[in-house]
Amino acid sequence: MSASLASSATNTSTNALTDLKEYLSADIGQVDACMLKMAGSYVPLVSDLSKYTMFAGGKRLRPLLCLAAARLCGYQGDAHIDLAASVECMHTATLLHDDVVDGSLMRRGRATANDQWGNKESVLVGDFLLGRAFDLMKAARSLQVYEILSHASMVISEGEVLQLTVQGDLSVPRETYFKVVEAKTSVLFAAACQVGAVIADAGDKKIEALRQYGYYLGMAFQIIDDTLDYAADVNALGKRIGDDFREGKVTLPLLIAYETASQEDQAFWQRTITKGEQTESDIITAIELIKHTGAVEASMAVANQFIEKARDSLTLFDHSELKDKLIAVLDFVIRRSF
Amino acid sequence: MSASLASSATNTSTNALTDLKEYLSADIGQVDACMLKMAGSYVPLVSDLSKYTMFAGGKRLRPLLCLAAARLCGYQGDAHIDLAASVECMHTATLLHDDVVDGSLMRRGRATANDQWGNKESVLVGDFLLGRAFDLMKAARSLQVYEILSHASMVISEGEVLQLTVQGDLSVPRETYFKVVEAKTSVLFAAACQVGAVIADAGDKKIEALRQYGYYLGMAFQIIDDTLDYAADVNALGKRIGDDFREGKVTLPLLIAYETASQEDQAFWQRTITKGEQTESDIITAIELIKHTGAVEASMAVANQFIEKARDSLTLFDHSELKDKLIAVLDFVIRRSF
Repeated sequence: MSASLASSATNTSTNALTDLKEYLSADIGQVDACMLKMAGSYVPLVSDLSKYTMFAGGKRLRPLLCLAAARLCGYQGDAHIDLAASVECMHTATLLHDDVVDGSLMRRGRATANDQWGNKESVLVGDFLLGRAFDLMKAARSLQVYEILSHASMVISEGEVLQLTVQGDLSVPRETYFKVVEAKTSVLFAAACQVGAVIADAGDKKIEALRQYGYYLGMAFQIIDDTLDYAADVNALGKRIGDDFREGKVTLPLLIAYETASQEDQAFWQRTITKGEQTESDIITAIELIKHTGAVEASMAVANQFIEKARDSLTLFDHSELKDKLIAVLDFVIRRSF
Repeated sequence: MSASLASSATNTSTNALTDLKEYLSADIGQVDACMLKMAGSYVPLVSDLSKYTMFAGGKRLRPLLCLAAARLCGYQGDAHIDLAASVECMHTATLLHDDVVDGSLMRRGRATANDQWGNKESVLVGDFLLGRAFDLMKAARSLQVYEILSHASMVISEGEVLQLTVQGDLSVPRETYFKVVEAKTSVLFAAACQVGAVIADAGDKKIEALRQYGYYLGMAFQIIDDTLDYAADVNALGKRIGDDFREGKVTLPLLIAYETASQEDQAFWQRTITKGEQTESDIITAIELIKHTGAVEASMAVANQFIEKARDSLTLFDHSELKDKLIAVLDFVIRRSF
């Protein structure tokens, strides 16, 4: 399961993400308009599939981070719009390929593009959107922006392969899991913030501080997402629970539960995760085992450490309304679960 | 079938491509060393699959064009090495995804990566190599280089989707076929030449001239490749004949043959290409029909028009050994067939 914003977020009274989005609503509206234009192609299938995936109800978290970072550093130009759209195009491209690789049929409550159009089409339109992402970067006229996002693009796919190779392997060290989380979520969160600061000419310290904010937020966000896959209130999360379990993905709550499991429980995990032999009721047992071993609390504690590091990274910025909102996002993310 | 250098090329006494490669042997050796390094990854599967595909006997045509363009414009630096490697990484990434999309099991006489490792792995490592390609571009320290190759990357995948959507459609106008050829081959040939000239600070006219050289050479090269799929000496070409036919790809010789076909022969093409109902002996009939309608000569005549345009584009360069070699490549490509 890739990190996606829990839809429960929109239902609470203290939704810091909605609040940030409202604060940046003029910018984010332009990002959406840019993305709609960028989905355009003389090949109707490219256009249709791109729009379907780009406007599927994603919460625009990465573009929001890019816009917020640029604004926090006092940016007054308009390249942040194309750059935020670029980051979201890159993210959308990885979603298209992820869904092909995972054989996913549902995302955000409706059929995936690979289910709707086919795997071939999703692979090629994913490539198109990645090319589009790089094409959009020209607005920034910055070698550093190209370098940051090129490197991110490479690290993301490298981590996707790592995730694939350790699938079902209960003996992977925790560091490997963190490496996967870093690649699949943190690197692009970090790059989104970093390039926002770069176009604002914020200077090395602020650029690095915002990179760290994005990086640690990304780590926490994905760990929480992985934990919610076993622990969420299904109605609140707005998606199926147990997706990672069914796909044999080795995530932090699972690693923690496995470490402390009895021999009998280890056999359960080996059958369901390593061998991939699952019955329909196994997910209920899995959720119980995860909860009873304290793996949910332990995972959330790890996530919280990253949240605190993200908070620390913002100390060098002067007090401002936007800074408060970025801190509120941290509090919201760690509390969004249950 | 993607454009690939006919291995017959290496067997003739007047092989202008081998000659160009020898002329640039020091550079191309460094490109290979760079690519070997770039295949490296902390994820063994990424490294193994990358090396397998990068060192599968490809003739390094695109990097050669990049190096030659830089040298023709008097380039004295060393960024052309990374840039040539970048172009080949981009090409390798498209080959990996093409083979997944086409379900190809053989390329250059051995198992494709998707057959050897799997579709998922090929999709993700293709993404990695595309990221690597963009990461390598930083050596050029040129916004224009990023812009040219980003745009190329987007156009390539857009054209791949176009090719997919017109598969089996015998009513496509010739312009659509040219659009596919442009996207799948010309655009990267053109970009390879163009960026070589850009890093040499060759000025707009020479940059545009070399772009045209690459573009028209690419058009001719792919049209000839498509024609050889029905007309090649199998032993000389070193690959199976009739791949495009089996995949229902609508190429120029097929369009020409279909235009002039009798009603009975049109029914043959509709069954085998549009409906995809083929028996083993159909390829023999197909080859005969292509030959008897003069579609081979007509296609080669179109290719030759592009070759002449490529030749014209070099007129603004002073006489030099390297210019002669680039012209010899044109003569070789148009004659390489039979």
